[in-house]
Amino acid sequence: MSTLKGAAIIGQSGGPTSVINASAYGAIKTALDSDVITHVYGAENGIKGVLDDKLIDMAMEDPEELALMKFTPSSALGSCRYKLKDPDVDDTDYRRILEIFKKYDVRYFFYNGGNDSMDTCNKISKYCLKNGYECRVMGIPKTIDNDLAVTDHCPGFASAAKYIATSVMEVYRDARVYDTGMITVIEIMGRNAGWLTAASALAAYKGNGPDLIYLPEVDFDLDSFIEKVKAIYAKTGKVIVCVSEGIHDKDGKYIAEYGSDLASQRDSFGHAQMGGLASYLANVVKEATGAKVRGIELSLLQRCAAHSASQTDIDESFMSGKCAVEYAVAGITDKMVGLKRTYDENGKYVCEPELVDLSVVANTEKKVPLEWLNETRDGMNEKFIEYCLPLIQGETQMVKEDGLPRFANLKKVRATV
Amino acid sequence: MSTLKGAAIIGQSGGPTSVINASAYGAIKTALDSDVITHVYGAENGIKGVLDDKLIDMAMEDPEELALMKFTPSSALGSCRYKLKDPDVDDTDYRRILEIFKKYDVRYFFYNGGNDSMDTCNKISKYCLKNGYECRVMGIPKTIDNDLAVTDHCPGFASAAKYIATSVMEVYRDARVYDTGMITVIEIMGRNAGWLTAASALAAYKGNGPDLIYLPEVDFDLDSFIEKVKAIYAKTGKVIVCVSEGIHDKDGKYIAEYGSDLASQRDSFGHAQMGGLASYLANVVKEATGAKVRGIELSLLQRCAAHSASQTDIDESFMSGKCAVEYAVAGITDKMVGLKRTYDENGKYVCEPELVDLSVVANTEKKVPLEWLNETRDGMNEKFIEYCLPLIQGETQMVKEDGLPRFANLKKVRATV
Repeated sequence: MSTLKGAAIIGQSGGPTSVINASAYGAIKTALDSDVITHVYGAENGIKGVLDDKLIDMAMEDPEELALMKFTPSSALGSCRYKLKDPDVDDTDYRRILEIFKKYDVRYFFYNGGNDSMDTCNKISKYCLKNGYECRVMGIPKTIDNDLAVTDHCPGFASAAKYIATSVMEVYRDARVYDTGMITVIEIMGRNAGWLTAASALAAYKGNGPDLIYLPEVDFDLDSFIEKVKAIYAKTGKVIVCVSEGIHDKDGKYIAEYGSDLASQRDSFGHAQMGGLASYLANVVKEATGAKVRGIELSLLQRCAAHSASQTDIDESFMSGKCAVEYAVAGITDKMVGLKRTYDENGKYVCEPELVDLSVVANTEKKVPLEWLNETRDGMNEKFIEYCLPLIQGETQMVKEDGLPRFANLKKVRATV
Repeated sequence: MSTLKGAAIIGQSGGPTSVINASAYGAIKTALDSDVITHVYGAENGIKGVLDDKLIDMAMEDPEELALMKFTPSSALGSCRYKLKDPDVDDTDYRRILEIFKKYDVRYFFYNGGNDSMDTCNKISKYCLKNGYECRVMGIPKTIDNDLAVTDHCPGFASAAKYIATSVMEVYRDARVYDTGMITVIEIMGRNAGWLTAASALAAYKGNGPDLIYLPEVDFDLDSFIEKVKAIYAKTGKVIVCVSEGIHDKDGKYIAEYGSDLASQRDSFGHAQMGGLASYLANVVKEATGAKVRGIELSLLQRCAAHSASQTDIDESFMSGKCAVEYAVAGITDKMVGLKRTYDENGKYVCEPELVDLSVVANTEKKVPLEWLNETRDGMNEKFIEYCLPLIQGETQMVKEDGLPRFANLKKVRATV
């Protein structure tokens, strides 16, 4: 394998997580330390930064400040939701990317994101190859949604899962404080895959969890839901329900739309956002039971709660970034660095990097296996707990200052050639 | 001062906090260790447990499990929102309370709560005195609202403040991830006093905070709010606003009602809860700017987030419970154990217990001083930061198990005589 000297670009794309910067830091630090990588550039707002020639010279950052990226939520380099066109239809963007790659002598491209980002990686790599420009392209996974194919799990999922399980445990205690009835509906992110909502089962595993869990993997029936809530309420006076934002009925209609249908007919703003799924379902069960209800939407909090990150997740995120650079320098290209689960001789969970073809990850979405749900499909079984529990271990070593998080503040010096 | 032998009751009342159990534990442990206190009873669901003769024998609990109360959110003994009548109008409840006190030889009564709970303490104490029954009554403060008179601050406030500041810092980062516009409205608890919303200024102090802060201490003007948001949005493309749930216009009408007016005219459920203040204001500014918006309600999370508690708050909460018992055993009665702020010779913050008359605390509500707001009254100044910062110091020593909180699980053995 020949040594390839040249610059590296690292970009971040898609919705942020608590630990995406740990991955970026793994890649940046390893690239800065490399003998063959001549310059390390951060792309401002992902591929848009490449197209706009907005690159950050990462060597200009204070190393101690850079190290704080491990504990800094959201995408420190900025992100985008920019989808590249099919190059056979319109290659404008690709020609521009190649132009920038040549301008900065970029021979390494690392992209940190979900399915769409892996698709971007894949297309760029193919285009460079077709045009005889040698550039090694590696994907670094991230998504709280945990829906990437092949990889056992995705960096970012576990920290969100830990925050969700912890918060549900706390709300469980809070919702039991009075000797009067109470029904709480908690809305959790996940449009098509219910991994995060499933994580609320960890709270149940610790005896402080939801009575009912609904994932988008299973068609949601409003009548059956109401009957189940009524039965639990009649028995215990307290009900906690965790629902994925993406739950839908058998015709594929989102339950959140039931609420916004009501609101949009009548609301002068007419926005589906008003009300929200948790409020809608809380009001439905209030109507049915007369109980005091509370709808809680975990909203952005669940994807940026770095203060409650899993140290396992931070370490694995860092590793995926680091390995992406090491593999690329060693000659590998067109792969995503997935995470493989193994167990050591004592049965202890171990995570290893695993190379996954970009083309496989780009176009698939991994859902929660139905055999990890309970028989009535309103909760998870021990298979899911076994899967999830090792991932959330370890408390973040986040640096605090004045009792508050000390996040990385990058200088972001624009690169020039 | 004569030694008073007899049993003690400890009860919790009102909305819970992350650290109210630290106070209860301070009282319970000190009472269990006392030579003169013969039995330690926990009242199930506050004063209702006394009226219903539902007392828990605290000596039957495993000491290690009891110690976990320091890190367990919500009211471990159960709470209530029961207001005692004026004894001159109807003394039924008081006669019953006295009957239970005599049955169990209760000579010490500790009540852990806010204004209403101090009122309860006060009335019970006066009634016992009038009827010649010697019982020492002490109040132990708690409230995330921080609105009790005389005491410098209230146990429970700082942990909620720390959670709010941390979460706002994280959302600040998240809301800046794309290079497109974004306006975020965060709704924080506080009906009449804006202490918790003011705590979001700590995030601004650390450079990751809201652009605008609105407290119920100042009349809210919707038009002025829209103009300010538009101006910031035009300049930076990113706006974060923190609002108290209790903000109201100059006529005293809650802004939250503006939204529910819209909803209730049209919504078949007609519940004010649907939509919420954050969603309403987010939609108002979306209308005005065309920006992408997000309304976030911190809801119950902010009052039960024990995983993010301030260790200073935990320690002070414990101290207030402990001192209540020590003072009562020493002969003091009819007081609440407030917290007094002093500074040592190095200018370091020190907190000391301070006795406050129950009658004073019972009927007053402490608001945020207007001179701690900025000139435009849409943010806080350095006086508030100076006040708040020492209170949120120290990370919780919460016990974890499987990467999740290990809360106290009490046996709650019913007491008999």
